Amino acid sequence: MTLEQKQSKRLTMAQIAKEAGVSITTVSKVLNQLPGVGAQTRARIQAMIEQHDYVQNHAARHLRKGQSGLIDLVIMRLEGGYDLGIMHGVQEALEESGHRLVVFATHEDEAVERRWLRRIQDQSTDGVLLLLPYERIGIAEMLMAQNIPVVAIGDRNEPTTNYPTIGSTIWLGGYTATEYLISLGHRRIGIIAGPLHLTTTRARLAGYREALERAGIPVDPALICEGNYFLGDGIKQANALLDLEDPPTAIFAGNDAQAAGVYQVLYQRQVRIPDEMSVVGFDDVMYTAQMPPPLTTIHQPLAEMGKMAANMLLRLIGGQTLESNRVELSTSLVIRDSCAPPRTGPLLNR
Amino acid sequence: MTLEQKQSKRLTMAQIAKEAGVSITTVSKVLNQLPGVGAQTRARIQAMIEQHDYVQNHAARHLRKGQSGLIDLVIMRLEGGYDLGIMHGVQEALEESGHRLVVFATHEDEAVERRWLRRIQDQSTDGVLLLLPYERIGIAEMLMAQNIPVVAIGDRNEPTTNYPTIGSTIWLGGYTATEYLISLGHRRIGIIAGPLHLTTTRARLAGYREALERAGIPVDPALICEGNYFLGDGIKQANALLDLEDPPTAIFAGNDAQAAGVYQVLYQRQVRIPDEMSVVGFDDVMYTAQMPPPLTTIHQPLAEMGKMAANMLLRLIGGQTLESNRVELSTSLVIRDSCAPPRTGPLLNR
Repeated sequence: MTLEQKQSKRLTMAQIAKEAGVSITTVSKVLNQLPGVGAQTRARIQAMIEQHDYVQNHAARHLRKGQSGLIDLVIMRLEGGYDLGIMHGVQEALEESGHRLVVFATHEDEAVERRWLRRIQDQSTDGVLLLLPYERIGIAEMLMAQNIPVVAIGDRNEPTTNYPTIGSTIWLGGYTATEYLISLGHRRIGIIAGPLHLTTTRARLAGYREALERAGIPVDPALICEGNYFLGDGIKQANALLDLEDPPTAIFAGNDAQAAGVYQVLYQRQVRIPDEMSVVGFDDVMYTAQMPPPLTTIHQPLAEMGKMAANMLLRLIGGQTLESNRVELSTSLVIRDSCAPPRTGPLLNR
Repeated sequence: MTLEQKQSKRLTMAQIAKEAGVSITTVSKVLNQLPGVGAQTRARIQAMIEQHDYVQNHAARHLRKGQSGLIDLVIMRLEGGYDLGIMHGVQEALEESGHRLVVFATHEDEAVERRWLRRIQDQSTDGVLLLLPYERIGIAEMLMAQNIPVVAIGDRNEPTTNYPTIGSTIWLGGYTATEYLISLGHRRIGIIAGPLHLTTTRARLAGYREALERAGIPVDPALICEGNYFLGDGIKQANALLDLEDPPTAIFAGNDAQAAGVYQVLYQRQVRIPDEMSVVGFDDVMYTAQMPPPLTTIHQPLAEMGKMAANMLLRLIGGQTLESNRVELSTSLVIRDSCAPPRTGPLLNR
């Protein structure tokens, strides 16, 4: 696909959206026969598409195949073990296919995301992997509207998307971690969630609730904290939980970075892990086994997720269809040394 | 530069090396009028070069300028804060220039390095950043032999190279950390070095020795450990140091990952930081401020190093010359909470 072809195609998509007074996403949904568009709007757009003689340029997608040899990975920030674990698997898959991996971090800046999007339209790419839970400018939809294959990895805002995604069984992870703490005798279990607008955060929380309810333990809203998935949120929320009149005996962190923050607070307050406080993480990034004490956590198969995402993308690039638009790999509990039965006496506020 | 030009050029370089019975590196040194080649060999190669009418293809380098818009970064592994810190700066510089960053990790596998090198010869790149202290197959020389601009970052095997490098004042870092521990009253200071074949490891060790000698403290070889720059090495060597009959009162780790390993050992042996053992790291990666207790460490300006390396590379791509083939940015001591005066009584073996 030449640049000219790309641009004429882009203009046509934009024209339809503009004429119909809808977003490009809506046009894309209609083109791909996906739900989420009212019947009247759908009919109007379809008429316009026929009028414009617009057809999805499948041939162009095939033409692009192997032309640049580049796969673009867009991530939030160059930090932490989660993204690196996934990149590891992506590279493994691309080494086999012979593609080169272009990496770009948006630093959660919408202006930077838009700039990247403008650039990618003028540059050659075979396809894009998105590791961007928070992006709100509709990158995936805009790429799809230009027939650039895209696969998204990990946390998402919405439960369903009109582009392929790969994740893990987050609900089960939330359930398993909580059930394990209950099995040790804990009844007051604090949870530090991620941002509640993420479906995956809500899934984790639902798993936590399910385990409590099955054990007949009432859910105490005071034990549920919201934060971002950063270490600083772990610090803030662990302090909040410890400052409760009736603090928890165990803390289930939303990810391992938050758990590291919890560790720091417990160290500062001289609360011993696991004797005085049990801690469970989420992700099982590289450093968790080396934390003092080694962290019990929910394993996400990060490398496998990255590898599968890359392979899904390569199949789309090759013009193949995917069996499923959504794939979830299994989470599992990794028991290390950060959990123990609760102390019989109450935890002193420190 | 077309692929054909590249290949004919590569063949010519290889032919000269083959006919002269020397390495491509040697030919490159002669071409670039660099030392390290005997007078006789030099004369012989120069004669051959004239015979072959070989000229360095500066025009081709200019032709390549901006053609691919890609900069390749080759790193050892997708792990840890050091590489990410540098990548952060590289991306910042490339965002300004509009280049895309291609990332490849070799996992310290020579076969993978060779495969990458073969591929990069058939693919387009504007230049290469090498973050590969351990590579022994001569990647930089081979890239230079093909007029692909290259800049190397960080630890190196050799003190001088015939390609541009950027690093930091490692000797000063070793000196400053040791001097600080001495100022607190420590006289038995263990050091966990990196691999001794790296110039940068030896520089760090020389700084350590210098500080001890200035303070009139004899250097005890039992306190000097060698390891790789991984967490596991920190664990192994910290155990070795604590098992000494006369263990140190402070440990100066070769990098922050090793320091995290030292922390783990001290936690397991219930040796309190800093009351019973002081610890200093090296690098100042992102997580050091959050370690329990926050780690005192030698700051390397990683992002600045990455940014400067990228800018040096962009200047080479633009056909400009660099003022210096070697740039070192300053290290500095960051004092946090992991150091204190030594206990008066001896440390019990635990």
